[in-house]
Amino acid sequence: MHSLYNDILIQELKKYRDKKILVAFSGGKDSLMLLDFINKQKESLNIYAGACHINHGLRHTAKRDEDFCRLYCIKNNIDFYTYNISEELKKDNSGGIEASARKYRYKFLLHTVKENNYDFLFTGHTYSDDIESFFVDLYTGASLFTLGGIMYENDKIIRPMLNITTEMVNEYIIKNNLEPVFDETNNDIKYVRNRIRHKLIPVLYDCGNEFEKSVIKLQKESNRLNEYLYKKVKHVILKQDSIVILKRYSFIELEDIEKEYLLGKIFSLFFRVSKNILHAALSFLNNDDSKRLDLPNGYMIEQSYHSIKIFKKILISDYVYNKPAGISLFKTDDFQIEFFNELKDKTIIIRNRNKGDKFGRKKLKDLFIDKQVELFERDRAVIIEENNVIIWAEYISKNNNIIFKRYGI
Amino acid sequence: MHSLYNDILIQELKKYRDKKILVAFSGGKDSLMLLDFINKQKESLNIYAGACHINHGLRHTAKRDEDFCRLYCIKNNIDFYTYNISEELKKDNSGGIEASARKYRYKFLLHTVKENNYDFLFTGHTYSDDIESFFVDLYTGASLFTLGGIMYENDKIIRPMLNITTEMVNEYIIKNNLEPVFDETNNDIKYVRNRIRHKLIPVLYDCGNEFEKSVIKLQKESNRLNEYLYKKVKHVILKQDSIVILKRYSFIELEDIEKEYLLGKIFSLFFRVSKNILHAALSFLNNDDSKRLDLPNGYMIEQSYHSIKIFKKILISDYVYNKPAGISLFKTDDFQIEFFNELKDKTIIIRNRNKGDKFGRKKLKDLFIDKQVELFERDRAVIIEENNVIIWAEYISKNNNIIFKRYGI
Repeated sequence: MHSLYNDILIQELKKYRDKKILVAFSGGKDSLMLLDFINKQKESLNIYAGACHINHGLRHTAKRDEDFCRLYCIKNNIDFYTYNISEELKKDNSGGIEASARKYRYKFLLHTVKENNYDFLFTGHTYSDDIESFFVDLYTGASLFTLGGIMYENDKIIRPMLNITTEMVNEYIIKNNLEPVFDETNNDIKYVRNRIRHKLIPVLYDCGNEFEKSVIKLQKESNRLNEYLYKKVKHVILKQDSIVILKRYSFIELEDIEKEYLLGKIFSLFFRVSKNILHAALSFLNNDDSKRLDLPNGYMIEQSYHSIKIFKKILISDYVYNKPAGISLFKTDDFQIEFFNELKDKTIIIRNRNKGDKFGRKKLKDLFIDKQVELFERDRAVIIEENNVIIWAEYISKNNNIIFKRYGI
Repeated sequence: MHSLYNDILIQELKKYRDKKILVAFSGGKDSLMLLDFINKQKESLNIYAGACHINHGLRHTAKRDEDFCRLYCIKNNIDFYTYNISEELKKDNSGGIEASARKYRYKFLLHTVKENNYDFLFTGHTYSDDIESFFVDLYTGASLFTLGGIMYENDKIIRPMLNITTEMVNEYIIKNNLEPVFDETNNDIKYVRNRIRHKLIPVLYDCGNEFEKSVIKLQKESNRLNEYLYKKVKHVILKQDSIVILKRYSFIELEDIEKEYLLGKIFSLFFRVSKNILHAALSFLNNDDSKRLDLPNGYMIEQSYHSIKIFKKILISDYVYNKPAGISLFKTDDFQIEFFNELKDKTIIIRNRNKGDKFGRKKLKDLFIDKQVELFERDRAVIIEENNVIIWAEYISKNNNIIFKRYGI
């Protein structure tokens, strides 16, 4: 067996000698080629390979595909893992079914990697997928910063087929008498990707194949531009976690294009970014009076004294807890409070602020403002109330009978 | 008459009330619509319009088109200008026939504007041309910085039809019973643009027209990115003329992407830039030992002590002049020399340096190096020789009988 794909794949796989590899295995021709190739070379390369099939449960042929994958692995003595994610997909529809499917697919694949001590996850994305992706990105409104295409490597995910074309896959499948499953929805032109694959790409090649080189060049440039701009803005990011905190005064000093890049990059962690959302957020941040703006998917952006925060709305939602008499330690995921002496024996209400709250004679809000407590912290701040009177407030009070400790944010 | 194009064009043309406008008139439907529309509105808008036809002399139908344009203008009482640029095109083929044609077309159009005191040149580029251009750029290997599309305004050139689609043009042509000439080469699919127009664009629209919005968005982003990067690099440019001079130490401190952007931008003034040329120039500039590198179209890049220069090779070519006895003033385009006393009466050779030149006992080269004369200046430096002996050298000598003056570079 000597073909171009052989040289390319052997070259790739040599990098993973002595490693334990999990292949994302749909049963389609790309991932079947990848798994089959690895399986036939595993001894010479000393690669240990397993396969994981994610059943989305969305098509009536989903079970057929799962069974095909299981059978192939049994026949070839490959460790096989499978997950059905249809329940998760039913619950989550934050960004369209394709985005949700991708999210849960990778979640379960990477979970399998971790649980079973694999070194890497391999996926069957090909060169042709990468070229297609450029035009999908173009159609769905990518920006110059996000035309980067499919990444070869990302975290533990490796895509060793990125230099393999559809033609090479077909050649391999035929030569090796393989019978991959076929996802009927691949022909359904209601999906942008399929329209591009079946209608646009053939015409592009018909016009000449110079465009391939240009696409690859632009993808590389987009990645470089991304790195370049990230270097220019990274000093603005104070914290990037489930809540993102930006230094407000550093943000203000950025060039417009840097601001847009930074927001786009952060937003894309949480929801699908459109030009309209970006522009709304930018004009919100240009207006000193505005405090908060709703973003998609239950997120918010807030500007306060020194910071800009992006977080899930639920983090500032109301809460009320009850500490019964006789209990000294009260714990939530976010904080713990220890009560001493007479407070231990009382019924105590633990909550966040309500409109009009007063602490002593003063408005709680004014006290927070005096201490320059930022809006986000004000709304989450723990208030302790006894007999309808506030006796303690986070950021403001000291009380020898209360020891308060906040974890995380 | 009430159509969308009417509102768009009236809106556009209102900006040029009381102006004298020259329309670039090929006789094709786009420029015919533009000229016809202006002609019908010229009184209400108080626009004075002339038309200029450039005959490229490349097709056997070129004369037919010129005649059509002339006749239309005579019938409609419009000042008409025409140039045949076939001679210029025969001589110049530095960047392909399409690029040369564009260069001379605009040269003669702008010449006509100037000679006849027009305020602006209008061209008939349409929205559809702009979308097409994006894919032409994509095919021919544009970078993220050069995807900007057709500019609405550039110097004295205005493109008021950029929001007019091909459909609107066709509607206008039919409604007004116009009979434009048809350039048969528009159907010749040996040209990338025609392949894209006739094969690719219809399929793109067939896939849905979201791509239009994306293209316009990317074009805008590309222009913004261009401005942004220009801001980051402009301090490096010392002089930008027929010879470009960059500050070498400022250049070295740029980020890689900024270097590439700056060179690309400068090179594009002189020749068609490819990725290979850019990379060759960048790696040349990373190597302290290299002094000069040949670029396309007879250009060179040079790095010297403090500067990087990009110039036409001919500027450093050999020259030898002869000042006959009895003549005191010698002049070229670049410099003049006045000879006094005994020198006036002698035969003097005026030339640039030869390999191995000695001045007194020293090598001329060493003298130049001692004075840190940059390479470009060394090669152009005026040497004065009498009886096979160098008696004076620019940058080095003083001689009371010689007054030397250099113009320009």
